[in-house]
Amino acid sequence: MSPPDGPNAFESWPTSHVVEGKAQQLPDPVVIEEPLEIRVDAQPLLVTMRTPDHDVELAAGLLYGEGLIDGPGDLAQLRDASQCGVENRVEARLRDPGALARARAARSFFASSACGVCGKTTIESIFATGLPLLEPGQPRLAAARLESLPERMRAAQALFAKTGGLHAAALFEVSEAGAELALLREDVGRHNAVDKVIGARVLAGRLPLRDTLLLLSGRAGFEIVQKAARAGVPIVAAVGAPSSLALRTAERVGMTLIGFLRNGRFNLYTGPERIAL
Amino acid sequence: MSPPDGPNAFESWPTSHVVEGKAQQLPDPVVIEEPLEIRVDAQPLLVTMRTPDHDVELAAGLLYGEGLIDGPGDLAQLRDASQCGVENRVEARLRDPGALARARAARSFFASSACGVCGKTTIESIFATGLPLLEPGQPRLAAARLESLPERMRAAQALFAKTGGLHAAALFEVSEAGAELALLREDVGRHNAVDKVIGARVLAGRLPLRDTLLLLSGRAGFEIVQKAARAGVPIVAAVGAPSSLALRTAERVGMTLIGFLRNGRFNLYTGPERIAL
Repeated sequence: MSPPDGPNAFESWPTSHVVEGKAQQLPDPVVIEEPLEIRVDAQPLLVTMRTPDHDVELAAGLLYGEGLIDGPGDLAQLRDASQCGVENRVEARLRDPGALARARAARSFFASSACGVCGKTTIESIFATGLPLLEPGQPRLAAARLESLPERMRAAQALFAKTGGLHAAALFEVSEAGAELALLREDVGRHNAVDKVIGARVLAGRLPLRDTLLLLSGRAGFEIVQKAARAGVPIVAAVGAPSSLALRTAERVGMTLIGFLRNGRFNLYTGPERIAL
Repeated sequence: MSPPDGPNAFESWPTSHVVEGKAQQLPDPVVIEEPLEIRVDAQPLLVTMRTPDHDVELAAGLLYGEGLIDGPGDLAQLRDASQCGVENRVEARLRDPGALARARAARSFFASSACGVCGKTTIESIFATGLPLLEPGQPRLAAARLESLPERMRAAQALFAKTGGLHAAALFEVSEAGAELALLREDVGRHNAVDKVIGARVLAGRLPLRDTLLLLSGRAGFEIVQKAARAGVPIVAAVGAPSSLALRTAERVGMTLIGFLRNGRFNLYTGPERIAL
């Protein structure tokens, strides 16, 4: 696995930089976006557009999010196929030979029954898929500790500093002493950044993510909150705005959801008991 | 179809606004995210998370982007099922009864063969799906005209002003007199905002989008550029960064791609002949 500012993550592009109608030719560092195919038990599962770094973690996070695995023990194999001369593919073999077929059936059921059933009913069907309830009131974090988190994340965003073109997800460990940056991943896709963070912990066998805070450089939509909830993250904070369905999901699982965390302020939408004011 | 700042697009959420450790309780306007199911010929095609506005346009844009229709003449019917008491569903019937099966076969072929084949070969397979080449050098726009576009888009973003939680896509008509804002759509999903804009023009039978500029409030990734290229948009400008695959795609179809259009400056990555410096 290459480092987050590895040679696969950006490239130079010949660019006219135009200021007040005057152009200057300079190579611009551009973030790399390429498709990654994930195969499970020799069958193509999905293709995602991603920044090529931490591909195995990304695949682990996606397999976990899709409910195909619950931990590293469910994987007979997970490998980057570039070891075998095939670029942009991760191959997984599951210990349970029936898991793929069951997950596919569940997913197709969800896709075809999600609507018609929408609004509240959809949320019911989301919860029917078994998001765990979080432990109430754990952990607690002082509001004053929150303000510095975006700056600490930004300082660690090597690729963003280069290209201005990435989303980031940062996992902080929360204790009485405050919040400690434990893991940061960047990607052109905001979901991918979250999947990479969660996947790293899946592979390390360190789930659920008790006593953590997940910080997002952008907005908090439903799918992000769903991924975090499945992994047991009790506090999600976003530099940008949340969506209505993200808030409903956070409320239902007992997650603390914070938005607009920037410029020394934030909005506390759900789970206020974890934040000491 | 409700207006972009319609009652379905945001809701109030009881929120603690925390500044310097002090909380004030105020309802916060939050953008609505809900699933939309699109059915084609009575079969579920896909579910997308979107802001509920201009659903029929969104569906038309998605069907066009997926290659299921080339214009309004390919649709026997396209309706919002809420007319019939079913929320969050749009139903389409195609004139060609074989179109759905052909598109599904093509898509599944692409998904299963995209990788292994990655990098350049993937780009070849993307072009094999038939993105049209754009007319060279048309239209031309003075660099000085570009600078004001983000401000004009922002002024028209009714929902963003309320919630801070939306992506926008704005279509400008380009002539010798400059660029005129023709259409703006907002959504929690950046792809959806683009699909809504393109879908509106699909339904009006006004494709390809010659002599236009598509302005994006965020970043320009591959899928956005692919959608714009399929619709014949000659100039794409983003307030944020482009990705490597977006640039490669723009270069291959002869599109002008501009990034970081903000604060009176921009980067011109491809197709510089359309911008008069």
